[in-house]
Amino acid sequence: MAYLNNITTPDDLRKIPAQNLPIVAKELRDFIIDIVSAKEGHLGASLGVVELTVALHYVFNTPFDKLIWDVGHQAYGHKILTGRSDVFETNRQLNGISGFPKREESIYDDFGTGHSSTSISAILGMAIASKLKGETLKQHIAVIGDASIASGMAFEGLNHAGVTDANVLIILNDNAIGIDPSVGALKQYLTNVKKGSAKQDNIFEALNFNYSGPIDGHNLPLLIEELNRLKTVRGPKFLHVITTKGKGLKKAEENQVTYHAPGKFNKVTGDLLPKVNGEGTPKYQDVFGLTIVELAKENKKIVGITPAMPTGSSLKIMMEEIPDRAFDVGIAEQHAVTLAAGMVAEGLVPFCNIYSTFLQRAYDQVIHDVALQNLPVIFCLDRAGLVGEDGATHHGVYDIAYLRCIPNLLIFAPMNEEELRNIMYTAQLGLQQPIAIRYPRGRGVTKNWKQPFTKIEIGKSLELKKGTEIVVLSVGHIGNMVAAVLNDLDSSKIGHVNMRFIKPLDVTKLLSIFNKYSTIVTIEDGCKIGGFGSAILEFANTNSFTNKVHILGIDDVFVQHGSVAQLHEINNIGANSFKIFIESLHANE
Amino acid sequence: MAYLNNITTPDDLRKIPAQNLPIVAKELRDFIIDIVSAKEGHLGASLGVVELTVALHYVFNTPFDKLIWDVGHQAYGHKILTGRSDVFETNRQLNGISGFPKREESIYDDFGTGHSSTSISAILGMAIASKLKGETLKQHIAVIGDASIASGMAFEGLNHAGVTDANVLIILNDNAIGIDPSVGALKQYLTNVKKGSAKQDNIFEALNFNYSGPIDGHNLPLLIEELNRLKTVRGPKFLHVITTKGKGLKKAEENQVTYHAPGKFNKVTGDLLPKVNGEGTPKYQDVFGLTIVELAKENKKIVGITPAMPTGSSLKIMMEEIPDRAFDVGIAEQHAVTLAAGMVAEGLVPFCNIYSTFLQRAYDQVIHDVALQNLPVIFCLDRAGLVGEDGATHHGVYDIAYLRCIPNLLIFAPMNEEELRNIMYTAQLGLQQPIAIRYPRGRGVTKNWKQPFTKIEIGKSLELKKGTEIVVLSVGHIGNMVAAVLNDLDSSKIGHVNMRFIKPLDVTKLLSIFNKYSTIVTIEDGCKIGGFGSAILEFANTNSFTNKVHILGIDDVFVQHGSVAQLHEINNIGANSFKIFIESLHANE
Repeated sequence: MAYLNNITTPDDLRKIPAQNLPIVAKELRDFIIDIVSAKEGHLGASLGVVELTVALHYVFNTPFDKLIWDVGHQAYGHKILTGRSDVFETNRQLNGISGFPKREESIYDDFGTGHSSTSISAILGMAIASKLKGETLKQHIAVIGDASIASGMAFEGLNHAGVTDANVLIILNDNAIGIDPSVGALKQYLTNVKKGSAKQDNIFEALNFNYSGPIDGHNLPLLIEELNRLKTVRGPKFLHVITTKGKGLKKAEENQVTYHAPGKFNKVTGDLLPKVNGEGTPKYQDVFGLTIVELAKENKKIVGITPAMPTGSSLKIMMEEIPDRAFDVGIAEQHAVTLAAGMVAEGLVPFCNIYSTFLQRAYDQVIHDVALQNLPVIFCLDRAGLVGEDGATHHGVYDIAYLRCIPNLLIFAPMNEEELRNIMYTAQLGLQQPIAIRYPRGRGVTKNWKQPFTKIEIGKSLELKKGTEIVVLSVGHIGNMVAAVLNDLDSSKIGHVNMRFIKPLDVTKLLSIFNKYSTIVTIEDGCKIGGFGSAILEFANTNSFTNKVHILGIDDVFVQHGSVAQLHEINNIGANSFKIFIESLHANE
Repeated sequence: MAYLNNITTPDDLRKIPAQNLPIVAKELRDFIIDIVSAKEGHLGASLGVVELTVALHYVFNTPFDKLIWDVGHQAYGHKILTGRSDVFETNRQLNGISGFPKREESIYDDFGTGHSSTSISAILGMAIASKLKGETLKQHIAVIGDASIASGMAFEGLNHAGVTDANVLIILNDNAIGIDPSVGALKQYLTNVKKGSAKQDNIFEALNFNYSGPIDGHNLPLLIEELNRLKTVRGPKFLHVITTKGKGLKKAEENQVTYHAPGKFNKVTGDLLPKVNGEGTPKYQDVFGLTIVELAKENKKIVGITPAMPTGSSLKIMMEEIPDRAFDVGIAEQHAVTLAAGMVAEGLVPFCNIYSTFLQRAYDQVIHDVALQNLPVIFCLDRAGLVGEDGATHHGVYDIAYLRCIPNLLIFAPMNEEELRNIMYTAQLGLQQPIAIRYPRGRGVTKNWKQPFTKIEIGKSLELKKGTEIVVLSVGHIGNMVAAVLNDLDSSKIGHVNMRFIKPLDVTKLLSIFNKYSTIVTIEDGCKIGGFGSAILEFANTNSFTNKVHILGIDDVFVQHGSVAQLHEINNIGANSFKIFIESLHANE
């Protein structure tokens, strides 16, 4: 790493003769593979833009010039070249650097990313600011992938930029894949451009951009020449760059979906290392994927929808088994939700699977198109709660608060695989209103989860343990931790109810709970403000109860990255902190 | 109205010889003008599609064939031809028909609209459903305007539809205007298509649509011929139709912005009739528009942003006075918010003005791009609370609940013009975090509102009246009603605090309030679940208070249309219902 070791800032990079840059690129790629193979992370996207990253920092005067990496999966090379090589091994770990660009982490991270398709709007805002400030020499660059540019927000940014004279350069990093392969008409169009069977300048020139490309994104001299040329062109520019995701690691090039974030692997062969733990109980994702197929084979009205997460959500299982009824619509959460609403209007039963954090993208569609018309879309909110290493941009901790205020919408949180399975079964039986089913990333607790379906009564909780003084009301998977801690504590004073439904609350049960127990503890892996605990307060107030209520959940700050277990402890909803809390409560009761 | 009087369903229309349809169109246009001139409503859009409406119902077999009107402003002709001519005079009134298509109102309203750009997704969902059900003869049509099709969600729908073989027909109703004139690169492109200087088939054919047009949308024989032809074409089709907003009423054609929803007017001359009441005190909208100009003249960092509502928000005042710093970005709420975030990152001070109901469209951007990075964007949430005649799709009653859970974000509700003005002044002084300022549609209470600016202390409430037993905590404009009722009641027992900040709460004041008063009443023009009242419950619980709290606000149902005063009474937050409530409370204290 003769070159890389001497690069602390892009200034150091710029002193290297251009003909030696391919060596820098090789060292950078090796460095990424070295660290990510051992420490895990998003591999493929960053390998694909090694040359582009080197070229951008070489040609442009960062951080004076502004550079935004859309989504940010691909920013590892950027981080390493901008002073973070020595801390790169802490990537995505508690108190380590973020896996995404982050403003507070570096002056080179001009805009934090994580969710896709924000970069064009953000860079345009910066370019307009520069113009108003009279900074005419400043360059503004956004790098965006072909999956991300197909999202509506990116189109909105292009549509505005095209009628400004803002000095922006949008670089399309076209590798024909997001996390899963890209889909949609625009993707087909881009493919045709690459093959030469479509006019290159069609769409982007129609939107008033000065278009160039497509060019080979792994050809450093070509990239540098083209970027230098574009530096002299004013106004909105668009450069189409072709790259290969996973470039430089054969297995990663061949298995792009797997090597998006492959976990630990052999850095020479690329072979994946075996996962350490958690085998035996299934992932909630697989329970979803296998169950929807099982249900869909019986109920021909069932369809599945995912906005660009077939692998992550496991809807892929249905896409393979029943391809005509399972839809990957691309990074298009808004469209996904209203598409589902349209399907319900014509008699289908859509399961619309969206990560909790990404449903924020379709909030209006949930209210305006689904709930207002009371169309029984079945939302499966994957990765609800704290997601771990992806950090602040990806935690799904607001859904309870932002969904609870919507009329007509049911909200359910399964405590285990069977409850997920049974609520899916229940929902497709002919529910007359929409439902949101929220469950976490990762594994459940039940090995023999595939039991015969049982209908779940809407709004009915499940008492797990009777007590006399204190009761813990839990929603969702976190109830397993509660049950284990209470089991260890073995006190007849403390009861436990798995509430299951956040909306409607089990009012009958709550009336008896508030009449019986002096102290109520609520626990959820979501924000305290407006969350499940607040719902219990609203219930208590409406019914004039004055029992003591303790609310456990996420405080009013953004939670950073770390393992889920670490983050649960930090937020006082982990096993250790809950044990201390409940023991103290128990002792004082 | 020889023809129109005999049309109860589209079947009746289809029996009329084609050569007589222009007479039907004339009668329909006259009927719309007759009623809307007296009863008010959205005029211009519906006049523009009279011929298209007649042609669609003539050619297609509604309601077997599916027909969605995007936004729905233009659906008056549709309502009249589908059995609602006799109730059309109740349009937008309490218990009358809705101003927008509404599923529960008619089997001809296939999908409820109100917010823009949903129609492509919804009709595609229906078309896929038909395909899966084997209904190969069914046609699926969405009519969408040129302002609405430029919104990201519409692009997402097109991008998906283009890779399906779904039998959809997207009709672009191109009149070059939304509520205000359309903007953006796509609009320029469409203009070039119309002038013949751009290839007609560019963008939509690139997205795999079978494109035809542009054709004259007021030429009935041509429309019928083309729609009949398209009936025989399978797969995704796109018809570009040129219309004139306000067609047939000279003043409406000449002043398209004013005649979008002109209020009462002379049906012959088109002259507007004078507004009846409310003169003297200004609209909150004008206070916003005039104040931002006043501030921006001093603070050169201030910019203004509106997603397609320059007139409605009054940002138009700034667009005229300081055009280079005021931006109408089109129907692109997501882009508007992240554009603002990018501007802050480079040192500007953006006021991003979005209607409360439309901020639902940019929820993720508020969380992920603004609050997470703690970028001090100043959101002005216009039309917060119940908006009146626009009804369920447009009420801004969820914002407190959905914003309150977001870390870093301040939430303020001015009680009057001066507070709006002063919080705007305060926010641009160098606030270190984002703020949402929510205010209602319509007039305030202060004639001499333009007083010297005063800084508002963040998190500080304002005690309006001292009491002994009961205190009313209000947020926003509704506090004026509370003050008036309490003034009439003239009881020393009842206090009143204008809380101003929903977040952060004035904790110091609340501690003294809960220690002093036995009974607390909260009132807000927002949903009870998760709203301001809930925040007070959370405060009480955290601080172990057991005072009786009464929460007044919107119940957990969608509120329909009617006048604001009527809707306030129905939801128990009007002057009469509040008076009854507080008197009863007072009597029992």
